[in-house]
Order: sequence, then structure tokens, then C-alpha cells
Amino acid sequence: MDRRPIGVFDSGLGGLTCVKRVMELMPGEDIVYLGDTGRVPYGGKSRETILKYARQDIEFLRRRDVKAVVAACGTVSTNGLEEIAGDYPIPVMGVTDATATAAVRATRNGKIGLIGTKASVRATVYEEKILRLMPSARIVKKACPLFVPIVEDGRIGDGEPVLTMVAGEYLEELKAAGVDTLILGCTHYPLIAGTIGKVMGPDVTLIDTGAETAALLRRTLERSGALAAREKGAYSYFVTDSAEDFSRTASLFLGFHVEGSVKRVTLEDR
Amino acid sequence: MDRRPIGVFDSGLGGLTCVKRVMELMPGEDIVYLGDTGRVPYGGKSRETILKYARQDIEFLRRRDVKAVVAACGTVSTNGLEEIAGDYPIPVMGVTDATATAAVRATRNGKIGLIGTKASVRATVYEEKILRLMPSARIVKKACPLFVPIVEDGRIGDGEPVLTMVAGEYLEELKAAGVDTLILGCTHYPLIAGTIGKVMGPDVTLIDTGAETAALLRRTLERSGALAAREKGAYSYFVTDSAEDFSRTASLFLGFHVEGSVKRVTLEDR
Repeated sequence: MDRRPIGVFDSGLGGLTCVKRVMELMPGEDIVYLGDTGRVPYGGKSRETILKYARQDIEFLRRRDVKAVVAACGTVSTNGLEEIAGDYPIPVMGVTDATATAAVRATRNGKIGLIGTKASVRATVYEEKILRLMPSARIVKKACPLFVPIVEDGRIGDGEPVLTMVAGEYLEELKAAGVDTLILGCTHYPLIAGTIGKVMGPDVTLIDTGAETAALLRRTLERSGALAAREKGAYSYFVTDSAEDFSRTASLFLGFHVEGSVKRVTLEDR
Repeated sequence: MDRRPIGVFDSGLGGLTCVKRVMELMPGEDIVYLGDTGRVPYGGKSRETILKYARQDIEFLRRRDVKAVVAACGTVSTNGLEEIAGDYPIPVMGVTDATATAAVRATRNGKIGLIGTKASVRATVYEEKILRLMPSARIVKKACPLFVPIVEDGRIGDGEPVLTMVAGEYLEELKAAGVDTLILGCTHYPLIAGTIGKVMGPDVTLIDTGAETAALLRRTLERSGALAAREKGAYSYFVTDSAEDFSRTASLFLGFHVEGSVKRVTLEDR
């Protein structure tokens, strides 16, 4: 048993969709969340910058004495996280492993779609992992840079006109390619899974990276006897921009009212 | 005559629409541009964070020995720039003074619209300045948070469907209020002025903050005898994310191919 908290970070608050799954699957765990809201978004930035920020994020969580770190961020997970993960003495986990496995398990025709930020789609991590598990697979990728601003603008309702138009345009190629499985490669996307699912149709399985990763984390901690056996964990949230608006936006991603402390911190001055 | 360069900064590359005007009006000036592309955008961030970044941006330009600084960024200009401008021994100019004057001069019915980022619209700088010049004026404001991502996604063509839909929605209130003058309160917006103008109709005057500010800067330098009398100035560009993609994106905002050096720099470690 390891009573230290689980650390989760993201460029902003999208990673809370993964935190929600961790809370559901491992209610006894303490969680420390870091959202780099002062520099959000990462998805349009260069690999070099993304990796520099990721290191600062991980180092911050390490100082809170976490037992494992989850990069609940598609952009970080696909832009070199695995190269730096080995530098730390605790597990540092992105979302790609669990997601690639789930996608391969779900597909029937071997055609897997991937949507994400520009940086996520520019990367080749998903192709490599999926092809290792299923050499005959075909991966069709599409960057959807307007999805994050649309979600952050709260335009997530079913039938929301701007979302519906943009989703129809972005997903057209993936539909035409006949994918039967679609990786929602950004932690913001579960909030618009309803619209994405409607555009793609009922025969396409959507893969939620946060849910798959939370399940893999549970198995990893279980296997090493590191699950905490508390009745209920405590949650603390850290952001790099103002903590004022945190609760309102966070509850959008968590789906319930935020419990736990929220603090503003500085990363770049260390 | 002061041969030192003019410094211009923005959260990203939108400020280049102002630089373009400076180049046109003062071809003999050297220009140093800083785009904080590693932390772009500022428009959804808190006033405190915006001001902290603005100070770092100004300090960077000061180290390049500039004779004046222009914050070619609606968000910075409306979020406390004037409080810190006095801390520097050179003119530090935002876009609001020239813009407020131009709006008051342009309006016939005293109804002035303002569109910008969330942070720009949350601020009250424009109201204060306009009401000081024209106490009977009525200001109608609307945050347009999707315009920047739409422009950065290159969706700027006339009749572009997503832009047209979003512009129609955002501008509806301003049209209904009967504004006859509209401040394009973000340096990205000149790129979509065609669509904005079409939605607003031919009787509404659009005010370009960059153009007005470049004109005010010229008058300011002229008055103090600080214009450089070179035939052609030299340009250097600095960014905080990768310099690789700079030229392509920059030429979008400048309207011509970038000449001059481009370098990546770090602000936050100093």
C-alpha cells in the first residue's frame, strides 16, 4: 500500500475528464492535479516547447511527493513524454498506451481514426503503437484545432450550430475512410462525444483516452501493491493562472462540483 | 533624430498587423518585434497573468535598446498596461488611446461597438476613454473568443462558412444596438475585417487599432524629433516558441514575405 497521492497534469483543465475517471475507479486515492492554465493551450505549440513545459509540470508534481504521474494531455503524451518518463523514479504515464490497446481491441475492420490537436496529429506515436499491436491496421488522422476553443467557449450542447458545422467538416474524411473506431485524442473531446458520435454514426466506437488510462493506472498500481486503501481520497488542484474561475470551469469537465483546495502556483520561475 | 529601434510586442503574431502599419508609415525605422508564441493566447487569461507577461515582454524589448514600446495587443492594452507604462523611461504605448479618439471622431450617432477577447471586453478602459471624449456616447461590447482560433486556423476567406456563422452570431447584438462605429479590439481582426464589414453593413465604420496606433506613434516620435531618417529600416523578430513556422504565419499577418532575422528567446527564466 502506498498512501502517496496520484499526480495528474494537463495544459489546462481538460485533463479533469481523466481525473474524473480516476476518482470513479480509485475512490480511495488522493489526487494532486496541475493545470498549466497560464500557458494553455499546448496543442498549437512546438514539440520542444511542449516537452519543456511537460518537464516543469512533472517536476512540480514530484515536489508534492506523488507515487505516479499521469499526463492527462494528448498533446504531451504524443510529443516526447516517453523520452523523459525514464528520468523519474516513479511511473510517468501518458494516455497513448492504454488508448492504442483499446483501439486495437475495439476495431473490427482495422481502420482506426485519430482526432486531436495539431501537435498530437503531427506526432506518430499512435501509429507506431497501433501497428506494433496490429500490423495490418490503417490509421487515419485529422487535426481539429477548433474543438478546444469551442469546448472552452461552452458550445458543447447537442445540436449547437457552430460545433455541429465544425464537427461535420472535420470528421468527413474519417467517415469517408470507413473507420470503425475513433480515438478522441484530446481530453477536451469527451465533452463533445455526443456530437462526434452523432456525426460518425452508431457503428463507430469512440475511445476515451482518459477512461482507458485511468483503468491502466489502476491495474499498474494494483499489480505493484501501491493502491491506497482509504475510504475516500482528498483532492488538491493547482493552476498557473488565476484560481478564481477554476471551480466553474472545472465542474464542466468533472461533471460535478469541485471539492478540495485550489491554489495558484508559478512553474517557470524555478 | 533617434536611431534606436521601435519595439512592438504581442501575445503572438497578431501584432504584426500593427507592425505592417508602422512599416508603411515610418519606413525608415528599425523594428524589433516580440511575439510570446510560447504562451499565446493572452485573451482568456487573468489580468494578473496578462500584466506579468506584459512586464516580461517590455523588459525583453528594453534590453534591445528600443526608443519606444508598442503593445500591439488589445488584451494587454486593456488590462493594466497604463499602470505599468510609467515605470519605464521611454514611451510605452497601448492601442486604446488612438483607437478611442478615432472611434469618437468616426461616430455620428454616438453608438460605438467594441469586439475583442474575453479579457479585453471584461476591461473598462475603452468606456472610460471614450466617455471622457464624448460623455453622451454609448458603448456596446461583445467578447468574440472564437475569432482568434478561427483566424489562426486560416479560416479568413470571404464567405468561409464557420467564420460567417460565428461572425453572424457574435455581431447580432451590436447590429441590433445600432452602432455606427465598431472597434476591432484585437490585432487579429483586421484579417477578417471583410467578413465583419459585410455582416455589419456599409454604414458601420470599422476602426483598426493597429493602424490608428501606428499613426499616433508617428506623431509622437515626430513631435519629440525622434524619427529615424534612414531610407529603409531593419527588422528583427523574436518568438518564445519555435521560430520554424514563423515566416509562414507571419506573412499571413504582414501581408508580405518576412524580411529580417527570426530568433527564439526565453522570457520567463530571467
